[in-house]
Amino acid sequence: MTYLNSTNIETYSHRFKVQLINSLSGFKSANLIATTNTQGQTNLAMFSSVVHLGADPALVGFIIRHHTTARHTLENIQQMRTYTINQVSGRFWQQAHQTSARYLQHECEFERTGLTVRYLQGISAPFVEESRLKYALSLNSIIPIPANNTHMVIGNITNIFCESVAIREDGYIDIEMLDTVAISGLDSYHVSTRLSRLSYAKRDKPVEILPLGGAPFSPVGGRN
Amino acid sequence: MTYLNSTNIETYSHRFKVQLINSLSGFKSANLIATTNTQGQTNLAMFSSVVHLGADPALVGFIIRHHTTARHTLENIQQMRTYTINQVSGRFWQQAHQTSARYLQHECEFERTGLTVRYLQGISAPFVEESRLKYALSLNSIIPIPANNTHMVIGNITNIFCESVAIREDGYIDIEMLDTVAISGLDSYHVSTRLSRLSYAKRDKPVEILPLGGAPFSPVGGRN
Repeated sequence: MTYLNSTNIETYSHRFKVQLINSLSGFKSANLIATTNTQGQTNLAMFSSVVHLGADPALVGFIIRHHTTARHTLENIQQMRTYTINQVSGRFWQQAHQTSARYLQHECEFERTGLTVRYLQGISAPFVEESRLKYALSLNSIIPIPANNTHMVIGNITNIFCESVAIREDGYIDIEMLDTVAISGLDSYHVSTRLSRLSYAKRDKPVEILPLGGAPFSPVGGRN
Repeated sequence: MTYLNSTNIETYSHRFKVQLINSLSGFKSANLIATTNTQGQTNLAMFSSVVHLGADPALVGFIIRHHTTARHTLENIQQMRTYTINQVSGRFWQQAHQTSARYLQHECEFERTGLTVRYLQGISAPFVEESRLKYALSLNSIIPIPANNTHMVIGNITNIFCESVAIREDGYIDIEMLDTVAISGLDSYHVSTRLSRLSYAKRDKPVEILPLGGAPFSPVGGRN
């Protein structure tokens, strides 16, 4: 085991610290957040901090820093109050990573990275056509995090688009089947291999291996 | 593509919604948070919401609900202001899941799940011996999330313990080498296969595949 304390860590270069500390939280989600401004100009940015907040009401949060290229995402969400989150999959993970380049304000990340803008169901924010699981959100709140001058942006999930084959009868979405990628550290991308699903833990019996969640879900007909 | 809007989603059962919405954020980190109360009684609980907040200062957050079994974690952190986060790996993911059972207050999750308590470097909160990457935190702040009456607990990283072989020269920790697991939905566990690391994105050139991060890091001698 290597042991590092605050005093050691302080002596490392900024770059080293960024790599090290980014690795500590474990695997991170890979999502593209798409917005427009009031002039209809699109913005697309990669985030690894999207986090589930609750199912009922359906809420998702993400962390944003003001001084980064992500500031246009925040400005657009504040103006328009609508945005989309698009899971990144094996088809376009390198293009997704490329969106984090410091493009100029008039440059369009969709165009520059070769990803496709798609508008759906009259929602004002664009979606990423290539994404296999994506959803629109309505801004709920922006919570300041004084500890390091960042913010958590919280949205209510309003419209979900998902490849039908991945939604199981019990509601579980098989994101592994969608080839959704995970991130470790700052820049490492991974696909997954399922160990298994596990039963709800009870205090007086061991957990059990669960099947994948029954037949594919059908929104028309047998709704759970 | 299956399309669901807020009106559809409202008609589903609570269980279905919990599975569905938990799948939307993408892959989630798997971590055990260990605490003690003022009487020295340990608590161990599984969290899939640990999120990187910043590297300098080194801050990590996680989301907590009051009414769940996780409330002892929150009470203990408020009392003791010290806790540990222990990455879950292929060696003990089923035991880690079992910690989420509703054990009685006097029951010890370490004992009941067969995980080993380990105290290190005089830190008052316990670590999980089986965990290959773990760290101690000092409570920074607890931020209320009014949207669904949850809280984000934020800690400063003070002491890191990591299997030496996984730390690369540039600071990246190869958590795939540590067999760290990821979660999808509520109850699905996954190991990973690296696609690659990618270079820092620049606006005028394509991203490049990066090597893993050079030689293993040595804290004695060549410090980056």
